[in-house]
Amino acid sequence: MKNLQPLMQPLLQPLSPLQIRQQCRSGQFSATTSGLAPGFVQANMVILPKQYAADFLQFCHFNPKPCPLLGMAAMPGAIDMPALAQQLDIRRDLPRYRIFQDGKLSNEVTDVTTYWRDDLVTFLIGCSFSFEESLLADGLEIRNITEQVNVPMYRTNLECTPAGAFHGGMVVSMRPMTPADAIRAIQICSRFPQVHGAPVHFGDPAAIGISNIDKPDFGDAVTIKQGEVPVFWACGVTPQVAIANAKVDFCITHSPGHMLVLDVPNSKLSIL
Amino acid sequence: MKNLQPLMQPLLQPLSPLQIRQQCRSGQFSATTSGLAPGFVQANMVILPKQYAADFLQFCHFNPKPCPLLGMAAMPGAIDMPALAQQLDIRRDLPRYRIFQDGKLSNEVTDVTTYWRDDLVTFLIGCSFSFEESLLADGLEIRNITEQVNVPMYRTNLECTPAGAFHGGMVVSMRPMTPADAIRAIQICSRFPQVHGAPVHFGDPAAIGISNIDKPDFGDAVTIKQGEVPVFWACGVTPQVAIANAKVDFCITHSPGHMLVLDVPNSKLSIL
Repeated sequence: MKNLQPLMQPLLQPLSPLQIRQQCRSGQFSATTSGLAPGFVQANMVILPKQYAADFLQFCHFNPKPCPLLGMAAMPGAIDMPALAQQLDIRRDLPRYRIFQDGKLSNEVTDVTTYWRDDLVTFLIGCSFSFEESLLADGLEIRNITEQVNVPMYRTNLECTPAGAFHGGMVVSMRPMTPADAIRAIQICSRFPQVHGAPVHFGDPAAIGISNIDKPDFGDAVTIKQGEVPVFWACGVTPQVAIANAKVDFCITHSPGHMLVLDVPNSKLSIL
Repeated sequence: MKNLQPLMQPLLQPLSPLQIRQQCRSGQFSATTSGLAPGFVQANMVILPKQYAADFLQFCHFNPKPCPLLGMAAMPGAIDMPALAQQLDIRRDLPRYRIFQDGKLSNEVTDVTTYWRDDLVTFLIGCSFSFEESLLADGLEIRNITEQVNVPMYRTNLECTPAGAFHGGMVVSMRPMTPADAIRAIQICSRFPQVHGAPVHFGDPAAIGISNIDKPDFGDAVTIKQGEVPVFWACGVTPQVAIANAKVDFCITHSPGHMLVLDVPNSKLSIL
């Protein structure tokens, strides 16, 4: 086995965040980023024309649990974010993008250079991948990972605080846990306010306006075992719903699951 | 009203921890300490002959959630604890004591000087009064305080790790809350591991062996409103049960609710 080591090592070594972004840029990689670059922050991305930027920033400020802002471009048209990702070209360094025109999905592409305009402002929003890693490291089970499906997400009657045209109900993700595990998850997630922080609810789905826990509005249903309760976290799909409600004339987002991989370690997001 | 101020002020000024202990010592005060010396730690007290002390210390070490040790006398026979309470005479500075002989309550007194022996070792254990103050300060309701009754406490099937003759199930206290308030309470209480820390369970009482939530084993039942779940904390009655199970030949404790008031501010117990 000893002789295999030099051959195996390169295969086992995960790509760095920069290497992943470069493979996105060259077109080599265009798949989902779940599980890539373990230990590093992955971000939701929203790009809006500057006439919406102040209102959207205020919406994030008013609703930090569903919309925790990790970063914002220094000025309209900027394609870099040197504090978060070296050599970044935001137009090409994600694996897949969605283009929205007049509130409707108009295209899905791997490069938005041809859509780029000097008035576009980029926002990066925290993603649950970061806290899921800390929960797994603590020995907690995450059902959607065990069952290899997307996390179930639900629209709720928890209204976000509106800002300008941006408004809507909070979307939540759900992970079933025993009460003891849920208590531990609340402790761990409280350390990470920039990736949605502590859950917003547990137990009765109807209390937050969810009528059928087996029919998520986004993602996939997961098994809830005897003795477990559903635990609900504010979810990064919330700003997408608010943007759809705002009927903005133009918007670019990442494609679901196809995140921007940053150079920032997840542990840097811990406030404690 | 202005002229009344000099007259009223002395009545509104709460007694200091030292003043309360001195009133206990002189026999002026022998009631429950709930609400006294706001902001200061109050402790459960256990005094055991030294042949039990090593095992009891190990029991506390093995079971830190129900038995968080705030302090232990420096040697058998010591009546002081200078780091926790100035000028302390542990035999006279609590409002009321219980004497147990051969595992049975034999007397309730306001001074244990005549029972004192040179082989007695004093232990002080954290009390939920400290975290209740932080919950109230955050705007959370505590039902047993609102309803002016003792907190409901229950025997559970959560077995403590035994040490020597000390063994038994964990006793828990219960406070009903909405899920959102429970999440906040978990965050706050996690900062106070020396006063039981985060809850150990919420929701289904049967999952931890509680058959009837309306019939607590100790204390009083409280109202659980629609939309609330019972939240359970490890409770300082647990060591009393373990001591009863151990059938120790002699033991002194505080009388329930009649705590030792320390000079330590509650905020000093916060780990964050």
